[in-house]
Amino acid sequence: MSVKNKVDELKARKGLFVVLDGGEGVGKSTNSEFIQQYLTSQSIDFISTREPGGTPFAEKIRQLVLSESDESINALSELLLIFAARAQHLNQKISPALLAGQWVLCDRFTDATYAYQGSGRGIDTSLISECENLVQGQLRPDLTIILDAPLSVTRKRLDERESLDRMEKESLDFHERVASAYRERALASPETYALIDASQPLGNVQADIKKVLDDVIKKWREPSDRL
Amino acid sequence: MSVKNKVDELKARKGLFVVLDGGEGVGKSTNSEFIQQYLTSQSIDFISTREPGGTPFAEKIRQLVLSESDESINALSELLLIFAARAQHLNQKISPALLAGQWVLCDRFTDATYAYQGSGRGIDTSLISECENLVQGQLRPDLTIILDAPLSVTRKRLDERESLDRMEKESLDFHERVASAYRERALASPETYALIDASQPLGNVQADIKKVLDDVIKKWREPSDRL
Repeated sequence: MSVKNKVDELKARKGLFVVLDGGEGVGKSTNSEFIQQYLTSQSIDFISTREPGGTPFAEKIRQLVLSESDESINALSELLLIFAARAQHLNQKISPALLAGQWVLCDRFTDATYAYQGSGRGIDTSLISECENLVQGQLRPDLTIILDAPLSVTRKRLDERESLDRMEKESLDFHERVASAYRERALASPETYALIDASQPLGNVQADIKKVLDDVIKKWREPSDRL
Repeated sequence: MSVKNKVDELKARKGLFVVLDGGEGVGKSTNSEFIQQYLTSQSIDFISTREPGGTPFAEKIRQLVLSESDESINALSELLLIFAARAQHLNQKISPALLAGQWVLCDRFTDATYAYQGSGRGIDTSLISECENLVQGQLRPDLTIILDAPLSVTRKRLDERESLDRMEKESLDFHERVASAYRERALASPETYALIDASQPLGNVQADIKKVLDDVIKKWREPSDRL
């Protein structure tokens, strides 16, 4: 399998894989721009991408997953579509960039699958974990920044949007389960996750993000700690 | 998981699941029509469907898989797309029909995945088998009719077609591996597979198919042998 070969090669990579994730309306777009500006200011060579999607073919899968459908979509089918997009994205874009020494900043990744398809739709975590191992091998993000805010804050932001996709239209209860899953995952692995309170004033949110980034940049620049 | 619940219910099903499969140009369309006419003549209530596809949503996945793409498509991504379509098809169409007592006649099924993605593209059989168990639980076709003909015969038929899809355009060597995989799978499980020589005159091919069908219809009509 080409995936496994890529994963072996990745042991020698030098770029870091950073994911920005969280529920709807937590401010991912604004803070992704901030992170990109900050990485640029630190002279870090990076690409910015997103999931589901990230390549033209994977973006077509994204459209299928997020568009309204007359047909009720089976949860397992949705899960496999997302991992099909991820396999393509990893092989065509993320892995080549990391291998070339670039950092990768990705808007959403597998935590979103655990949150939306797992806690949201009720798919067994073990099943998601099986797909994760199949598609990613041992590859996991080096840093995942989870933006967290109460639904009372995030729903207001969603209400201002002109149109909502299949996920955004889900019930309050669904979004509560999604937000809880993100929090739980971040708290369970503090060594690679940063849980940021996104209900603070933007300046404070970005000060928190800067602190986390400074920490990983410092470690990354120390030759002995490089991957 | 809804899939698993469906599979449990299927133990009580009364319809038979019949698959017609084989490489490109072996005469599936013509012989599918023959089978449909024959089942009708035997007063058997059935639906006819196909893979990848079979529901509007799964047909959109089919388009993604079979359309020409500027981007090289990762083999694992292709595999997961096919099983995403299969999960949808099984849940929305095949399982409900079988549960309602109808027979299901399906043009291609998981043998095609073993043949095209496995032998054709080189994906590990164990990985396909993992996806098969995940999506189908214990559900397997009751009868799979494999049409088999030498490439010297089938390539002539393909050459007459106006346009070819991504699979049909693959190399001779690819199609040789696909045809061998079908043969091997049929010969390994004679109790549920029929390997039919599709290079014979059509009348003989259909006489062979009729014999196989008569056999399963007879068994299906004996109450003690019903599933």
